[in-house]
Amino acid sequence: MKVERIKGFRDQYPEEMEPRKKMFSIAENTAELFGFGRIDFPSLEYLDLYRIKSGDELLNQTFSFTDRGGREVTMLPEATPSTVRLLTSRKDIPRPVRWYSLPKIWRYEEPQSGRLREHFQFNADIFGVDTPEADAEIINLAGSILTNLGLGSAFSIHINDRVVMDGILKYLGVENTERVFTIIDRFHKTTRDEFLLLLRENGVSEKSASILLKLVESPFEIGELGGKISDIVGKSETLSERLDRLTKTCDIIRKYGKANIMVDFSVIRGISYYTGIVFEAFDRQGEFRSILGGGRYDNLASLMSGQEIPAVGFGMGDVVLELLMRREGKWGYNRKDYTYVLCFMGETLQYALEVADKIRKNGVICVMDLSPRGLSKQIRSAESQGFRYILIIGEKEKERGTVTVRDLKESSQSEKTLDSFISDAKKTVKSDI
Amino acid sequence: MKVERIKGFRDQYPEEMEPRKKMFSIAENTAELFGFGRIDFPSLEYLDLYRIKSGDELLNQTFSFTDRGGREVTMLPEATPSTVRLLTSRKDIPRPVRWYSLPKIWRYEEPQSGRLREHFQFNADIFGVDTPEADAEIINLAGSILTNLGLGSAFSIHINDRVVMDGILKYLGVENTERVFTIIDRFHKTTRDEFLLLLRENGVSEKSASILLKLVESPFEIGELGGKISDIVGKSETLSERLDRLTKTCDIIRKYGKANIMVDFSVIRGISYYTGIVFEAFDRQGEFRSILGGGRYDNLASLMSGQEIPAVGFGMGDVVLELLMRREGKWGYNRKDYTYVLCFMGETLQYALEVADKIRKNGVICVMDLSPRGLSKQIRSAESQGFRYILIIGEKEKERGTVTVRDLKESSQSEKTLDSFISDAKKTVKSDI
Repeated sequence: MKVERIKGFRDQYPEEMEPRKKMFSIAENTAELFGFGRIDFPSLEYLDLYRIKSGDELLNQTFSFTDRGGREVTMLPEATPSTVRLLTSRKDIPRPVRWYSLPKIWRYEEPQSGRLREHFQFNADIFGVDTPEADAEIINLAGSILTNLGLGSAFSIHINDRVVMDGILKYLGVENTERVFTIIDRFHKTTRDEFLLLLRENGVSEKSASILLKLVESPFEIGELGGKISDIVGKSETLSERLDRLTKTCDIIRKYGKANIMVDFSVIRGISYYTGIVFEAFDRQGEFRSILGGGRYDNLASLMSGQEIPAVGFGMGDVVLELLMRREGKWGYNRKDYTYVLCFMGETLQYALEVADKIRKNGVICVMDLSPRGLSKQIRSAESQGFRYILIIGEKEKERGTVTVRDLKESSQSEKTLDSFISDAKKTVKSDI
Repeated sequence: MKVERIKGFRDQYPEEMEPRKKMFSIAENTAELFGFGRIDFPSLEYLDLYRIKSGDELLNQTFSFTDRGGREVTMLPEATPSTVRLLTSRKDIPRPVRWYSLPKIWRYEEPQSGRLREHFQFNADIFGVDTPEADAEIINLAGSILTNLGLGSAFSIHINDRVVMDGILKYLGVENTERVFTIIDRFHKTTRDEFLLLLRENGVSEKSASILLKLVESPFEIGELGGKISDIVGKSETLSERLDRLTKTCDIIRKYGKANIMVDFSVIRGISYYTGIVFEAFDRQGEFRSILGGGRYDNLASLMSGQEIPAVGFGMGDVVLELLMRREGKWGYNRKDYTYVLCFMGETLQYALEVADKIRKNGVICVMDLSPRGLSKQIRSAESQGFRYILIIGEKEKERGTVTVRDLKESSQSEKTLDSFISDAKKTVKSDI
């Protein structure tokens, strides 16, 4: 009786899971070096938790059900509500709070390129400070993770500020703000004519619509922020005040000295709870969906618990990231290239086991034949499995306390003392795994 | 509107999640050094997958439901069926296959000490070889993980062999094997009198019952295996043949030179699919449930796919392991003891950011104040948050390319060049995190 896996889910073999683990580990380490602490939360929550901030669209995409105890529950469709629950249920946590998490997330959506029904999501948030420094740090963390993943030249982070956008719309006399945000959010999915038409249909004047088009059609360097807005939109005191915060954030981001960060007025982020800066990271070649997205959401803690706790954070799924890393040639790891296969004669088992133990204690991967047979059969089996290094232990090696190392790639072989072998082998260890 | 978490689930703050991550990382690294590759599989599977090997008891403890597509699905109640699905769906994987995984597992059971409705489970399996070497290796892996976790003196692994047990029961004229296995499995939950009574009620003779009691009542050294069985049960050729495999496995385990491994005839493992060796690791003080359990299950792949693939493996949950590590004082990690809090004056922001970047690139945790205010306020805030090290960057430090390091624990302070500071700080990094 054969049972398949469910549509939109993944079976992950070591050739997929090992580079994925490396990717996660780089993200985790980067967050930890910034002082972010790892949290985790249930993969199952009351459905009510998502009724607070999310619309029907999300609720219709959940894996939700009634459990044996009659609870209306759902498999985690996003991380933020649980994270905020952790935060608001304890009063003793010194702020600012820097947290990251790496849960699985489930959405009942139609699977397509870059989107599955189950994926891992890396999340990072800073709670308790509403400053340009906090906004800049979270963006710098996102950028540092992508850079540490070797994607330095493959991504750009595009930032915008809901407060600035709102100010611009007000300045342009647009009334239907929420609706216009939705239209801008879909800018890259529509033609320019459709975009203008949609704006006009929603009460935006022809002049304002063409200003908005000019504003959102291409991102620009963060240093050009003030100038671009004066040029395209115009000048006013209210507008300048609203620009102040984003300008400060951009200044700090520039001091971080990281490239790849642009201002992009087409970045709105669908979810209405964002209250300030919003940002997304994009593949520069435009091949994939956005790599990560986030922003400031200062009202959620209050909605959930009555406590006023400012917050800024982002989420990054592993599906698009994997596609990008594969394209950029950053996805490779073959454990077999770093593994020593120990082939031994029955009489030398004890010495072989000691050798294996010592090798592993030094951080080098060592596998042993599990169906002892003639030495040459063991060697052939290791070769056919695609391993690179073979260690041969016969009576001679046992007596002398040595090992014979065969490198199948270089077609070389030499006898070494155990210690000198280990010191050489440590150099071949892929240390970033 | 406040929404609580669901009963039997955990919210995990950094003080719980950081030592847990360290624990997982030691288990993962140990498995990798043995050549095990990481796999992952969906957290949601068709309920049918568990109808093959598991009884109604498991099916009644699942978080199962019908999804929006009408599928009868369940949140993963155990890892083995998914692992075997991965194995049997591809024919190109060279054997032996060594795999490990670390999924979350869900069971709708009454929460109690050491048992929750959601937990992480570390799993390791060897497929494709049915040899004493494979049995010994999987047990050695289990023991090595616990030893590397610092639990060397806190656990024992108890092994038994279903084939031997079956032989002994046959030798003793017991017919109701499955039922008697269940009684033995519950030995430590019954009194001796109850145990004997249950055996007698199930057709075991008085003499055989008292032999069985003697056999299961205490574990013994693996070297004593043959002697103990002759003494307690008796001698026969069939019995010796059946003992042969376990004896060989014990010989190899002894050669591994690891202590903490005993033969224990009370270890049966509830699940009926085990076909050879079975084992569990116990807290030596007997305070907790078993730490891990596993065994050989050579028929599952065939039941699931018609392919004959021998298998041996184990699963280890994180709940009991955490209790044990806490008791043994191996659970501590305080990130704040390894963090450098960078306090700076506004004018030195750019230098401060460069310093932070350089520190992090060297693997040292660095956090920055996110609400810049006077230097002394920043320092007081870092102190009140419980951090140990503070880095002060004023105009002087900026000009000279130095940092002033204050150690609040040692009440000491000194100015260092950035390079010498970094080289000192790297020594304080807790490298095994």
